[in-house]
Amino acid sequence: MNAPVYLDYNATTPVDPRVAKAVEACLYQHFGNPSSTHVYGRNAHQVVERARHQVASLIAAEVDEIVFCGCATEANNLAIRGVARALRDKGRHLVTSAVEHPAVEQPMRRLAEDGWEVSVLPVDSHGLVDPAQLEDALREDTVLVSVMHANNEVGTIQPLAEISALTRARGILLHTDAAQSAGKIAFSVDDLGVDLLTLAGHKFYAPKGVGALYVRRGTPLQPLLVGAGHEGGLRPGTENVPAIAGMGEAARIAHERNPGHGDELCRLRDQLHARLGEAIPGLQLNGHPEQRLPNTLNLSFAGVDGRELLAHAADDVAASVGSACHEEGDAVSGVLGAMGIEAQRARGAVRLSLGAPSSEAEIERAADALIAAWRAQTD
Amino acid sequence: MNAPVYLDYNATTPVDPRVAKAVEACLYQHFGNPSSTHVYGRNAHQVVERARHQVASLIAAEVDEIVFCGCATEANNLAIRGVARALRDKGRHLVTSAVEHPAVEQPMRRLAEDGWEVSVLPVDSHGLVDPAQLEDALREDTVLVSVMHANNEVGTIQPLAEISALTRARGILLHTDAAQSAGKIAFSVDDLGVDLLTLAGHKFYAPKGVGALYVRRGTPLQPLLVGAGHEGGLRPGTENVPAIAGMGEAARIAHERNPGHGDELCRLRDQLHARLGEAIPGLQLNGHPEQRLPNTLNLSFAGVDGRELLAHAADDVAASVGSACHEEGDAVSGVLGAMGIEAQRARGAVRLSLGAPSSEAEIERAADALIAAWRAQTD
Repeated sequence: MNAPVYLDYNATTPVDPRVAKAVEACLYQHFGNPSSTHVYGRNAHQVVERARHQVASLIAAEVDEIVFCGCATEANNLAIRGVARALRDKGRHLVTSAVEHPAVEQPMRRLAEDGWEVSVLPVDSHGLVDPAQLEDALREDTVLVSVMHANNEVGTIQPLAEISALTRARGILLHTDAAQSAGKIAFSVDDLGVDLLTLAGHKFYAPKGVGALYVRRGTPLQPLLVGAGHEGGLRPGTENVPAIAGMGEAARIAHERNPGHGDELCRLRDQLHARLGEAIPGLQLNGHPEQRLPNTLNLSFAGVDGRELLAHAADDVAASVGSACHEEGDAVSGVLGAMGIEAQRARGAVRLSLGAPSSEAEIERAADALIAAWRAQTD
Repeated sequence: MNAPVYLDYNATTPVDPRVAKAVEACLYQHFGNPSSTHVYGRNAHQVVERARHQVASLIAAEVDEIVFCGCATEANNLAIRGVARALRDKGRHLVTSAVEHPAVEQPMRRLAEDGWEVSVLPVDSHGLVDPAQLEDALREDTVLVSVMHANNEVGTIQPLAEISALTRARGILLHTDAAQSAGKIAFSVDDLGVDLLTLAGHKFYAPKGVGALYVRRGTPLQPLLVGAGHEGGLRPGTENVPAIAGMGEAARIAHERNPGHGDELCRLRDQLHARLGEAIPGLQLNGHPEQRLPNTLNLSFAGVDGRELLAHAADDVAASVGSACHEEGDAVSGVLGAMGIEAQRARGAVRLSLGAPSSEAEIERAADALIAAWRAQTD
């Protein structure tokens, strides 16, 4: 039997074979410690700096604005807690949204435990933050706003440029968790107007174990992990040379990818949506109909439990009911809840996320399996 | 021309080819997110749990006592700051030694900034902590002692079992940074009597980008990075599956290695020492003559600067003057300073560290080059 069709690219992606080659070169050749001054160290250092250049290019940043971290969760912790610490004498008010990943929500919660005040912005039924509500939340002592770029569960893309106009006018820093958007849609840090931006390698065909934080020059930031002086004093620990090399190559591939790639993903996704919609009455889209990642399709299947639907279709489709990080729990998604989606509809939600290897044949097979599973469960 | 002989295994090690194969299996096959409940996720989860078992076996720990991190620096930060936070209402006094790596020294410094009190124990001329002095430093409000297992620059091995007898009797937790000893010498966490122990994959032939913290069952610890609930709630972020698989395989290899391996390394190291000693008058060993890592040889070359000596021999030998993490600075080693070694002798220090691939022929070539370089610089 064929392996099930992978439709969980928002959870993680397979490593691009060109990326795997870049990683292997570090496993077999460039094994030095980039801090060593001998030739083995200098070679490894060059690998890291080349990757830094590639990642910077992807988001149109300067090379010295990229800090490599162990994962996007670490980058989010560094951004939020690093700014809070650096500016603790200036103000202790932070603003975020109700649909953030736990990697943003939890650092905010930790700061709240430690005496900061955190305002959490609601979202509308499409998952969008309202810039006018954000403006109302800003205060004299607000030091940082953190609003994600694109949501991991429903794919809704936030109006960061509008948000940035508000924060910049007040001298407030803006961070965005772009773990789900970087490498999937093209943008520059100046388009978004952000001061800090989180990237996750393994969401765009790099290996797991590496993330990066973009830090606009001049942004006050204290390191979170402390130790030796790696990464401009912002992230100690011997650099993960193989994964960094892989992330660089993945950034290069994403940057140079055919600009029509997003349209193609979008077409396949909408084809899947249409096939399911024809066969399944009452199917509902969760997330913004247009302002959304081109690969993400979060659908509520009427009258069934999303988990049970996927279990039934498991031989043919590998997808999830929401964030992979929540798989263990059985509570319904906090993101859907924040969007005001009622419990029964939320329980029927399934996240189908496509990727570069997705094909027409895969989409057809997945649609057939999901339709059959839905029919079996509602008969 | 042949590449220079690598004698900087304490900075980092090449990846064992068997380890590289384990990493590659994750790059090409087991790409799933271990938190996903579908087959791709379950396969990745199995890889991680197999590695956890292998790492636990290396140090005779329970499987659920191993927390994978992004690097040993992170593991040290988690151990020290995680215990301090968990026990902040119990006491705010910490004890460490004067020869720790910055990855321990800096977390202590951060806690000192934040209101904890830190006692720093001196070492003797061999780099050893005196348990009697440690005993004197312990107080009612001491919550944690962190003393490294083996020093990265001189290789001196601390008397942890004696230290642990003192801390245990008082209900004080004991952490050790075993980044340099794990995989090089055999030990169990019960032999050492520690509650927390840091491992660094890339110091024993695993790739960079992965470390682990041993956390004895029942040890109070709060996570440092916060986010989703990975690693038993102690380390959020999608697991670095390829590097974790590699660390597991490296642990397996280290655990199953011929027990005579250390003796062989020791023999080669002492042969190098003898060759250099015969040719170079006034050569001095830094570190303990016996209680020392079998691969580490820190020597002071009379009348020369260690950096200049290595620069002269760079075509034939790749070694360092101390910690790779300090390479950029031009100050003399803080470790040698703490051992009371005067500035001129410290400036002449070179750290030669051997590894599994080291051979007799390499040792001969390195010795010839170092002797020639010394002669050229003292003529």
